[in-house]
Amino acid sequence: MKMPKRALFVGRFQPFHHGHFYAIKKLLKKFKEVVVVIGSSEDSFSPENPFTCGERLEMIRVCFNQADLSRLIFVPVPDVNDNRVWVDHVFMHIPTIDAVYSNNQLVKMLFSKHGILVSTIEFFDRGPKEGSHVRRLMADGDRSWTKHVPKNVVEYLDAVEAEQRIKKIVRMGARHV
Amino acid sequence: MKMPKRALFVGRFQPFHHGHFYAIKKLLKKFKEVVVVIGSSEDSFSPENPFTCGERLEMIRVCFNQADLSRLIFVPVPDVNDNRVWVDHVFMHIPTIDAVYSNNQLVKMLFSKHGILVSTIEFFDRGPKEGSHVRRLMADGDRSWTKHVPKNVVEYLDAVEAEQRIKKIVRMGARHV
Amino acid sequence: MKMPKRALFVGRFQPFHHGHFYAIKKLLKKFKEVVVVIGSSEDSFSPENPFTCGERLEMIRVCFNQADLSRLIFVPVPDVNDNRVWVDHVFMHIPTIDAVYSNNQLVKMLFSKHGILVSTIEFFDRGPKEGSHVRRLMADGDRSWTKHVPKNVVEYLDAVEAEQRIKKIVRMGARHV
Amino acid sequence: MKMPKRALFVGRFQPFHHGHFYAIKKLLKKFKEVVVVIGSSEDSFSPENPFTCGERLEMIRVCFNQADLSRLIFVPVPDVNDNRVWVDHVFMHIPTIDAVYSNNQLVKMLFSKHGILVSTIEFFDRGPKEGSHVRRLMADGDRSWTKHVPKNVVEYLDAVEAEQRIKKIVRMGARHV
Amino acid sequence: MKMPKRALFVGRFQPFHHGHFYAIKKLLKKFKEVVVVIGSSEDSFSPENPFTCGERLEMIRVCFNQADLSRLIFVPVPDVNDNRVWVDHVFMHIPTIDAVYSNNQLVKMLFSKHGILVSTIEFFDRGPKEGSHVRRLMADGDRSWTKHVPKNVVEYLDAVEAEQRIKKIVRMGARHV
Amino acid sequence: MKMPKRALFVGRFQPFHHGHFYAIKKLLKKFKEVVVVIGSSEDSFSPENPFTCGERLEMIRVCFNQADLSRLIFVPVPDVNDNRVWVDHVFMHIPTIDAVYSNNQLVKMLFSKHGILVSTIEFFDRGPKEGSHVRRLMADGDRSWTKHVPKNVVEYLDAVEAEQRIKKIVRMGARHV
Repeated sequence: MKMPKRALFVGRFQPFHHGHFYAIKKLLKKFKEVVVVIGSSEDSFSPENPFTCGERLEMIRVCFNQADLSRLIFVPVPDVNDNRVWVDHVFMHIPTIDAVYSNNQLVKMLFSKHGILVSTIEFFDRGPKEGSHVRRLMADGDRSWTKHVPKNVVEYLDAVEAEQRIKKIVRMGARHV
Repeated sequence: MKMPKRALFVGRFQPFHHGHFYAIKKLLKKFKEVVVVIGSSEDSFSPENPFTCGERLEMIRVCFNQADLSRLIFVPVPDVNDNRVWVDHVFMHIPTIDAVYSNNQLVKMLFSKHGILVSTIEFFDRGPKEGSHVRRLMADGDRSWTKHVPKNVVEYLDAVEAEQRIKKIVRMGARHV
Repeated sequence: MKMPKRALFVGRFQPFHHGHFYAIKKLLKKFKEVVVVIGSSEDSFSPENPFTCGERLEMIRVCFNQADLSRLIFVPVPDVNDNRVWVDHVFMHIPTIDAVYSNNQLVKMLFSKHGILVSTIEFFDRGPKEGSHVRRLMADGDRSWTKHVPKNVVEYLDAVEAEQRIKKIVRMGARHV
Repeated sequence: MKMPKRALFVGRFQPFHHGHFYAIKKLLKKFKEVVVVIGSSEDSFSPENPFTCGERLEMIRVCFNQADLSRLIFVPVPDVNDNRVWVDHVFMHIPTIDAVYSNNQLVKMLFSKHGILVSTIEFFDRGPKEGSHVRRLMADGDRSWTKHVPKNVVEYLDAVEAEQRIKKIVRMGARHV
Repeated sequence: MKMPKRALFVGRFQPFHHGHFYAIKKLLKKFKEVVVVIGSSEDSFSPENPFTCGERLEMIRVCFNQADLSRLIFVPVPDVNDNRVWVDHVFMHIPTIDAVYSNNQLVKMLFSKHGILVSTIEFFDRGPKEGSHVRRLMADGDRSWTKHVPKNVVEYLDAVEAEQRIKKIVRMGARHV
Repeated sequence: MKMPKRALFVGRFQPFHHGHFYAIKKLLKKFKEVVVVIGSSEDSFSPENPFTCGERLEMIRVCFNQADLSRLIFVPVPDVNDNRVWVDHVFMHIPTIDAVYSNNQLVKMLFSKHGILVSTIEFFDRGPKEGSHVRRLMADGDRSWTKHVPKNVVEYLDAVEAEQRIKKIVRMGARHV
């Protein structure tokens, strides 16, 4: 039984933006399958993680066609307290992979402690900042956030009234009381 | 067996202030019983939650007479990581209710995801800000905090040397080491 | 500010039975107030803890009149992993008390490690066994369980179809899958 | 944006057996997409859950072709302490669904508390027992377990030396020390 | 800076018995230092783990002289849910080591998944069974347990009235209510 | 069996600096043994806790000779949510002690709630601030941090490339994604 060549890509997708989309598209060209870890899966309706794991799955899926979807392996992974244990925690959740891609320095360092080389995705350095930038625009009601996410994601976020949600969450802080 | 009409009121009561007191008094006039959820019950001796769950129970109870106490149902509820699961988590802890009251936009949104309408308590918009305001005054040793909480609560807070405690906690941050 | 004399009584109340009822009634005669800790508050729909915290609150409250209710302080307390820390965990949740009552040897030992004497409740040795006995009868559909719990609790348990629930839970084990 | 009709199917897949396979195949005929929740995702190398979440994903995927895979949405979901909160916990992890399928009485009861009807999968009553039966056969080194799981899963389980693993785990109990 | 050669030895030490003692003595002869992991460190006053982490530290230390103690590195490690992540969890807690010793098949398997060979300690196959055997004897009040633990440990266990504690814990089960 | 006189000293040791070193040296002169609690033991590779528990053990041990090491009892203790329960949580992890030393006001207050007097360590008021100061210098690549930690710790931190690690962690925040 020969397993297909697979790449690992990790993100929180709060929300799924163009940077994520291009990175995954690129990996789909080089690998038979791409394992997409949805980090902080257990968190939602908070300023850093406004969308539930299910909503994130939805907004990613609407951006790919059937052929792509059959080659994408989505794996929600909850946070662990200890960053040092995080890599092993991820490996327990995912099927075997052949390569890890990330532009995040901390992710690279953590994998390197396990002797795993992390490759850089060229032209994808907007990523880490882009998510928080989009959330800030949404909280401000600045409609220009729509330029940062795929068209289908805009449509989805409007359907779930994402802008209103983020405004309320940011205004209240993370506290529900 | 007919259950009495009940309202739900949620707070952290750090400390119990006039805003909380008037809101509960108001609900006691409209409902047979009031379920009072004490949120973040597991946290204490931290800047956001200086008082233990037991101390909060004590400072609320000293403000009501026997007749009121027999109609108040106090339910400490610990935090959950995921805000989305929070409503169901609350429902698991409390007896059945007929109405939910809150002026907090996030609480309203979370309950509305379960199809539950949350009513507004008129003239009670000081609430969410008032708690942190009182804690700040106490940390500064500004005795004017006593104007924001019922007289019995002042007496109780002085008995447990609350001002000194908050000063130390705020100065050290949440860290004990 | 003088606090009333209080006794502590701890139980899981799965369900609330005659043993619990008589013990609390007895303590209400000796003390101004009784703090009733509802243990394992976070567990429900499992063979050991079929009823939610809210349902347990409900079935206890229907057994007492208004005058008693004003003197009962119910405090749900979730489990902690470490038994050694459990006593301090309970103390954090409750208002100050003057005496602890229990016939459970382990509870007595744990409190004695903190230098606290635990008194025995006479004629109340049916307790620890009685709960599991009632659950077993309910799982077997043996209606004689109704003799072990107060009349109002029978009415309540029938209203929530408790017998059916316990049959299903016991048959499936604790697993939901 | 119209979402495709989706069914929810929940299992632990320890391991993925014929019962699971036929049920999912059946649902793929009736629904555009099937959400497959992998329960107890955080547990592995224990007698009840010998395989990691990643291994379970692997052994399910090798049983379906590309067309099917594009319509299957796998969602690992860790356990929660409280069964009563479990349904909401699942809903937070998954995209919106139109129907729930299960033959498990407890799952049916828990969803019915949320007003959700759970449909029965005909000719699939071997499920709940079949997993533990397969694990027992593997622990005994009885090769007849291979008749209960799809051919590709047999091949996969042999590749990861599953029989040896389960023998060791069962012999040692869940304890690693 | 040259680090001394170190061996890793893992146990729960409930209680510390002759098997543990001889194994550590043996390793002290071959290695400059021995890292002794105290597993399930967060559990106590339960049938499987009657002694606190602090008590276990105490009963181990009284068996070694100053010279040995300076070469022993005790590291309490709490349990993790997932056995697969356990090895990495241990590595995060301990200083670097050169060899791992255990006769436990599951421990060997878990380390081998990380490419680490686990050596066998000759003449030490009584270990895994011996702890539970000692606890059973103590629960039965059978004084012959004293033959299984070092003389200083007997003295210590008698000083903390261990026999009485275990009897009560076993009789009550793990439940405190 | 007479237990030696012991003092308790608590720190996070991120990293182990001169303040810690002098305090422990001082206590070793007054007491037969010193129990050194390594707080927040489960956290690592984060801005507040860059070093793992194992690394902290290593960097402390290289500062003491064999005679000292035989009298030092290191006990890693993970955090607990509730500060109020923290003292009991510490006591469960450590062997019995005779005195507690700390200059931290919050630690003093928490122990005093248990009726335990905490002594001040003279000339050691640099402690609480010193750790964060050293981390900031390291993040800035300001080599003057080497003046704040013992020479052996400098050597160790350079060996594990601590400066690079802290730069990356601080730049990325605590998030790995």
